[in-house]
Amino acid sequence: MRKPVIGVVGTSNDSSPAVDVALKLGKLIALEGWIVLSGGRDAGVMRAVSRGAKEVPGSLTIGILPSQSSDVAPDIDVAIVTDLHNARNNVITLSSDVVIACGIEGPGTTSEIALALKNNKRVIVIGATEAARTFFEEVAGGKLIHVKTPEEAIQALLAVFTGGRRK
Amino acid sequence: MRKPVIGVVGTSNDSSPAVDVALKLGKLIALEGWIVLSGGRDAGVMRAVSRGAKEVPGSLTIGILPSQSSDVAPDIDVAIVTDLHNARNNVITLSSDVVIACGIEGPGTTSEIALALKNNKRVIVIGATEAARTFFEEVAGGKLIHVKTPEEAIQALLAVFTGGRRK
Amino acid sequence: MRKPVIGVVGTSNDSSPAVDVALKLGKLIALEGWIVLSGGRDAGVMRAVSRGAKEVPGSLTIGILPSQSSDVAPDIDVAIVTDLHNARNNVITLSSDVVIACGIEGPGTTSEIALALKNNKRVIVIGATEAARTFFEEVAGGKLIHVKTPEEAIQALLAVFTGGRRK
Amino acid sequence: MRKPVIGVVGTSNDSSPAVDVALKLGKLIALEGWIVLSGGRDAGVMRAVSRGAKEVPGSLTIGILPSQSSDVAPDIDVAIVTDLHNARNNVITLSSDVVIACGIEGPGTTSEIALALKNNKRVIVIGATEAARTFFEEVAGGKLIHVKTPEEAIQALLAVFTGGRRK
Repeated sequence: MRKPVIGVVGTSNDSSPAVDVALKLGKLIALEGWIVLSGGRDAGVMRAVSRGAKEVPGSLTIGILPSQSSDVAPDIDVAIVTDLHNARNNVITLSSDVVIACGIEGPGTTSEIALALKNNKRVIVIGATEAARTFFEEVAGGKLIHVKTPEEAIQALLAVFTGGRRK
Repeated sequence: MRKPVIGVVGTSNDSSPAVDVALKLGKLIALEGWIVLSGGRDAGVMRAVSRGAKEVPGSLTIGILPSQSSDVAPDIDVAIVTDLHNARNNVITLSSDVVIACGIEGPGTTSEIALALKNNKRVIVIGATEAARTFFEEVAGGKLIHVKTPEEAIQALLAVFTGGRRK
Repeated sequence: MRKPVIGVVGTSNDSSPAVDVALKLGKLIALEGWIVLSGGRDAGVMRAVSRGAKEVPGSLTIGILPSQSSDVAPDIDVAIVTDLHNARNNVITLSSDVVIACGIEGPGTTSEIALALKNNKRVIVIGATEAARTFFEEVAGGKLIHVKTPEEAIQALLAVFTGGRRK
Repeated sequence: MRKPVIGVVGTSNDSSPAVDVALKLGKLIALEGWIVLSGGRDAGVMRAVSRGAKEVPGSLTIGILPSQSSDVAPDIDVAIVTDLHNARNNVITLSSDVVIACGIEGPGTTSEIALALKNNKRVIVIGATEAARTFFEEVAGGKLIHVKTPEEAIQALLAVFTGGRRK
């Protein structure tokens, strides 16, 4: 029985408030004994979520890198190098049991949420704007789970797994 | 000097009004002497845009197929078979000089627009809803070009090319 | 009914004798009215095969490029940009009805032949060495078709198509 | 500092002698504290190498799966689902510090060795036939390391890492 893999996506901008959210979220996911998967680069949400996870002894962090020349975040345990560039976003979603977005600040995260939905994955968004909620309600009819904090995201994950919807 | 390649994306739903838009758009693109590139499957916008293009003698239609087992639309001249499934959406955007979306009805088209923006491609959307406009303004700050009809899309394409922004 | 697509692979080394073979082969394929597909870069067999094809009026050349930053050969009509790097070799084989290798000089061409066989494509090799013949006989039991010249490759292609084995 | 990742490739044929080689090899790699990466499917060398590794407490096994519908080997700890089909072979090689082939029995393994060489990875082959040795000498001039047993493969790995050639 494999451990659940939680994909965490979000901005590569180091000065976004999403970075602190990701740091906290990574730790909380690891405390549940789940694996943290991200885009693996040494920037923004990718770096923070793996750093948070590695505060927990025995945690495991996987990075799905776009390119052979990408800088890998220091707290990534296993670097999967795809050389697929932006198409690696699809591999992130396919390899995750559930995808969590720490906000939606740019087209990269937007593509990851859209691909996750297209691949029939559950998606949790922390702190979506009103515009994002309205848009995704229109294109994906209620499939996104909206929460405000990392703690609420963990509760939502537990509900997904309890509901037998892990896939 | 290669001919411009116009990527056209949109729903695979055959009963969407976007199908008629795509049929008209395909013909107009071909009349300009440009190449029509799409997802290539025998459904919805993909089938319609290549059908419209092939009403014009000498036109060329390229389909970027997700899988070896995909049904190819009858008016596709060259089928590029990727076996990349949803990651083929990235190849569609990278191979296009400009991407035109015939509406945004689901997560597939959303992913294509987002990947196009991530790849620094110009994107024209025909008939975006208010919610879509607001959301993409938020994540991509004015990079989408909004129009209402296929004819206006052609005018926008001509403006892009004249502006020297073909890339 | 789509025209047959012939994938041509081989070295990117401009000083290989395979370059002259590819130039001749491209012209002969185009004279049959078939589409020439290659790796699309401005080097070696890729450049030569599209140049040969474009000596024939009405011919069509497709290039499957590894990267957004690849230089495209001047005689490519349609550049499919994959950003998949070496994984684009798989797309070359999947998009071809038959694959022809102009010799086997390095690991790139080896990977293309192997992927073509794995994808159940017919593969014709022009001028394989004895070592290559023996090895591929061992791993693919008689599936390669060996010929010595571009003219013989065309005869082999015609036999494949007549035999109803186009797929 | 990430642990070395050893990619192990080979036939999916359950009755090949390579299966016993892979079982032993997986255990030996895990005993060194290295991560075992494979194609992840529930067949042949992929299943055996992860089974061997999991005999060692604290070991870690990664599977790079071709498709969402692939059966995952029972001893895989983390399943990376690519939906790239045969193009996932490139991801296997890129994500490995060194690739070890348990024999070369078909075009799949051939493609993995060729892609690994193309990506400038060190490749160790256990029990290559004379034909395979001669062919790869021709296309890759001495870049393959040939050994006869799993124990010798570990010695070769240690020599690679000591030689500072890990990349």
